[in-house]
Amino acid sequence: QSTVTLYGIADVVGRYSTTDLGKGAGSLAKSEIVSGGINTSRWGLKGSEELGGGLKANFKLEEGFAMDTGAGQTKDFASAPQAFSRESWVGFSGGFGEVKLGKTWTPFDDVIGTSDGMFNAVGMSPMRLAFASENYRDTISNTIYYATPNFSGFAAAASYSAREGDPKRARVEAFNVTYGSGPVAVQFAYQQEHLELATAGGIAGTTANNGTYAVLGGSYDFGIAKAKANYAKVTNKAWGGGSGENIDGNNTKEWQIGVDVPMGTALTLSASYAKSDDNNATGANRTQKRDGFGVAGKYVLSKRTFLYGGFSLNTASQVVTGSTTGDWKKNIVELGMNHKF
Amino acid sequence: QSTVTLYGIADVVGRYSTTDLGKGAGSLAKSEIVSGGINTSRWGLKGSEELGGGLKANFKLEEGFAMDTGAGQTKDFASAPQAFSRESWVGFSGGFGEVKLGKTWTPFDDVIGTSDGMFNAVGMSPMRLAFASENYRDTISNTIYYATPNFSGFAAAASYSAREGDPKRARVEAFNVTYGSGPVAVQFAYQQEHLELATAGGIAGTTANNGTYAVLGGSYDFGIAKAKANYAKVTNKAWGGGSGENIDGNNTKEWQIGVDVPMGTALTLSASYAKSDDNNATGANRTQKRDGFGVAGKYVLSKRTFLYGGFSLNTASQVVTGSTTGDWKKNIVELGMNHKF
Amino acid sequence: QSTVTLYGIADVVGRYSTTDLGKGAGSLAKSEIVSGGINTSRWGLKGSEELGGGLKANFKLEEGFAMDTGAGQTKDFASAPQAFSRESWVGFSGGFGEVKLGKTWTPFDDVIGTSDGMFNAVGMSPMRLAFASENYRDTISNTIYYATPNFSGFAAAASYSAREGDPKRARVEAFNVTYGSGPVAVQFAYQQEHLELATAGGIAGTTANNGTYAVLGGSYDFGIAKAKANYAKVTNKAWGGGSGENIDGNNTKEWQIGVDVPMGTALTLSASYAKSDDNNATGANRTQKRDGFGVAGKYVLSKRTFLYGGFSLNTASQVVTGSTTGDWKKNIVELGMNHKF
Repeated sequence: QSTVTLYGIADVVGRYSTTDLGKGAGSLAKSEIVSGGINTSRWGLKGSEELGGGLKANFKLEEGFAMDTGAGQTKDFASAPQAFSRESWVGFSGGFGEVKLGKTWTPFDDVIGTSDGMFNAVGMSPMRLAFASENYRDTISNTIYYATPNFSGFAAAASYSAREGDPKRARVEAFNVTYGSGPVAVQFAYQQEHLELATAGGIAGTTANNGTYAVLGGSYDFGIAKAKANYAKVTNKAWGGGSGENIDGNNTKEWQIGVDVPMGTALTLSASYAKSDDNNATGANRTQKRDGFGVAGKYVLSKRTFLYGGFSLNTASQVVTGSTTGDWKKNIVELGMNHKF
Repeated sequence: QSTVTLYGIADVVGRYSTTDLGKGAGSLAKSEIVSGGINTSRWGLKGSEELGGGLKANFKLEEGFAMDTGAGQTKDFASAPQAFSRESWVGFSGGFGEVKLGKTWTPFDDVIGTSDGMFNAVGMSPMRLAFASENYRDTISNTIYYATPNFSGFAAAASYSAREGDPKRARVEAFNVTYGSGPVAVQFAYQQEHLELATAGGIAGTTANNGTYAVLGGSYDFGIAKAKANYAKVTNKAWGGGSGENIDGNNTKEWQIGVDVPMGTALTLSASYAKSDDNNATGANRTQKRDGFGVAGKYVLSKRTFLYGGFSLNTASQVVTGSTTGDWKKNIVELGMNHKF
Repeated sequence: QSTVTLYGIADVVGRYSTTDLGKGAGSLAKSEIVSGGINTSRWGLKGSEELGGGLKANFKLEEGFAMDTGAGQTKDFASAPQAFSRESWVGFSGGFGEVKLGKTWTPFDDVIGTSDGMFNAVGMSPMRLAFASENYRDTISNTIYYATPNFSGFAAAASYSAREGDPKRARVEAFNVTYGSGPVAVQFAYQQEHLELATAGGIAGTTANNGTYAVLGGSYDFGIAKAKANYAKVTNKAWGGGSGENIDGNNTKEWQIGVDVPMGTALTLSASYAKSDDNNATGANRTQKRDGFGVAGKYVLSKRTFLYGGFSLNTASQVVTGSTTGDWKKNIVELGMNHKF
């Protein structure tokens, strides 16, 4: 049993939200107990075996679930919750870096949240609510993943995911390059998702074009505060349209700035502003502009447990058409706890 | 890994049962290998972290399953087995008591089985087979649960479960008050389940009325034997009708008496008689009377393993209508083993 | 926690395969990342408690899953993945042998792979691809399993699985007898599967006849090489037709020979040839002959981790009818890793 580590995160949050759907469409207020305010709740098994000469065999199996209902999570366009929805891989690490085989997070996923303020909170972060980039496929079946070792602060990772004929899946290539030294951290990541033509067994509405995601992010730690910023570009994808479709000529540019401010040893405050502009070839909301602003705090009770709370104000509006269809305002207030085990 | 405890119960039982459906309807005899004769088979993860000053962060994730087939359990009206069907919560405990957030057992569930004889065996206890009270929702999503500390033997707990618009769910409030000192133990619990009107998105046949459950139970340990008894009342619910319906004017009164008799260090015998009388406003079986009698034994092999066996004779009959439709006799014999890990 | 052992196998393999469907039917080449080249990937919980006098209480809960997608495994004709698809049992062991109750592997399953070459690899072994015997029900619900202790090298096991009225299941009886001493190992196993008539609630196409499987296998370790061979006979079953059907008059005879050759301390090579001849009463492929040849290597990196690779060439052809419908060639090349935890 010493070979296996059992671990997880239990994250539950009380959320109050109002959604205003624009002129005449009314608004909706909700109070909910929700799972995963900062991190998706999860449990997993992982382990590592020394093979000699610095070489290790490693594995990880991780399942996401909802603390509020106990339900398992369904990821990667599966038809039902998986045994291990988030990760299931085995591989080697050593002087050459690390190789993983199975279902892994993509190198794009590795870094997109790093430069986000608001603790990259799943349900509150303006970036997570506004960015078309957030539609990327995050954990993917049939993947080979390679990460380099760290070279004087530089590191890189690349992955290839085979589609294997599944119409719900895409062939995905992704990579990242990161640099970190003292107060400076920079990340660049790129991911492309290739769907087949509908007539070749792809899903409805797809085309032969790749959808692509690119993000450049960074942070600088001034000591009294850590500044964060990123810029991202998405092509042939639609915001909120699911990862299931590649649409020729769609185009989104988006950016976010954030700041983390430590207030003594236990409390950290963070603020963030995100903005995303669609310039799409098709769709009713093809000129939608989205933005959001939020403030959150994290209060550390122990090494494994913290409380958190915050709010964000998020809006979407059409610019060119003058129509208010597709406009909305979402205000979110959360107060929760996060416990690692 | 020292932070997580992996635990569970493996309970398998051989069951022989006969069901007689009354005049002309024939009878059915079955031999089965069944999971969970005394306790539902389960596995789970739990842990606790000291935060200082007596405060602790706690979590529990528990999945029920069938030992005879390996299948996961579906609870709380979900459409498929959950990752953690029985419990999934995180919270704090300390001098103030305990708070849990997520999916928890209700305070009604905490105590209803305490005053039952026959080891409250899932498949044999006359009370579990006869009581309309057994239809209560036991583990519920979106719950806040609070338990007080023990005050000189007195303790209490309360829970609130939000429906969050799910037509299969109910808004549920429950509480219990318990007292224990020396040989005496007393429990009272109450639970109400609020469904919406069918036209407001509720499920078929529901009304705006709350279904309510109340139970008063107690026991006295005479040393040579422990006497147990309870009385329960149910309104706006039907026996065996599932928790999915609230029916105005339904009304059930029911009681049970039991006795546990220790026969040396390893063996305990227990007997129980339960009686339940419906006085319902609607339904073919609106005057059904149910009762049952049983004897069971538990033979402890070790701290974690025991054998058990027993039988119960259970009947239902119509009183007012004179019809024998809805009459039945169920005789059950079980022999099984229960292993905690 | 010391009472529970958490364990598993993570096995991922890269597979290249070509399938030639005979004259005019074309061929198909595929590159895939697949889970379970040598062993099905799995995780589980198991434990054992000393009860005194050599008696132990034991349990095992084991779930199969796919490393490449994270999906849970569905076994025993269930409609969805189980919580524990492979095993879920509790029981006792001691001087009398071992008893298990719940869902267990059958005694036929215990030994059928023992005399196979090619490490009995799930996806490459010619025997696993050619044998009609491989259609047996391997892990079965509602089972009582008994294994004797070892008597001077002789041991035996028997199981009975109740159908309990489930139309997708069968009543199954199985047993094995094995002998091992020094370089010699011999195994015999028999399994019969009883389906109901379709009109009695059985599944379509079934008859009242039992399907039966019998296998006699053995090996002799010459030191420089270990020779393996087996002979099997199947009645009232069709190759590849699923375990869901018993067909009167079907009849398959099949055999396999293999050799394992240790090449130093880390590397073992293995070769195998398997042949299976159908002589069926019904079906388009009723005279199908299948055979296959393969070579594989296993390179041990540590106690818990090995690399493996190999290829097999597999064919099927009709003899009597002269038709080439039902003829095929499947060539498979694999390279993978297997990590136990």
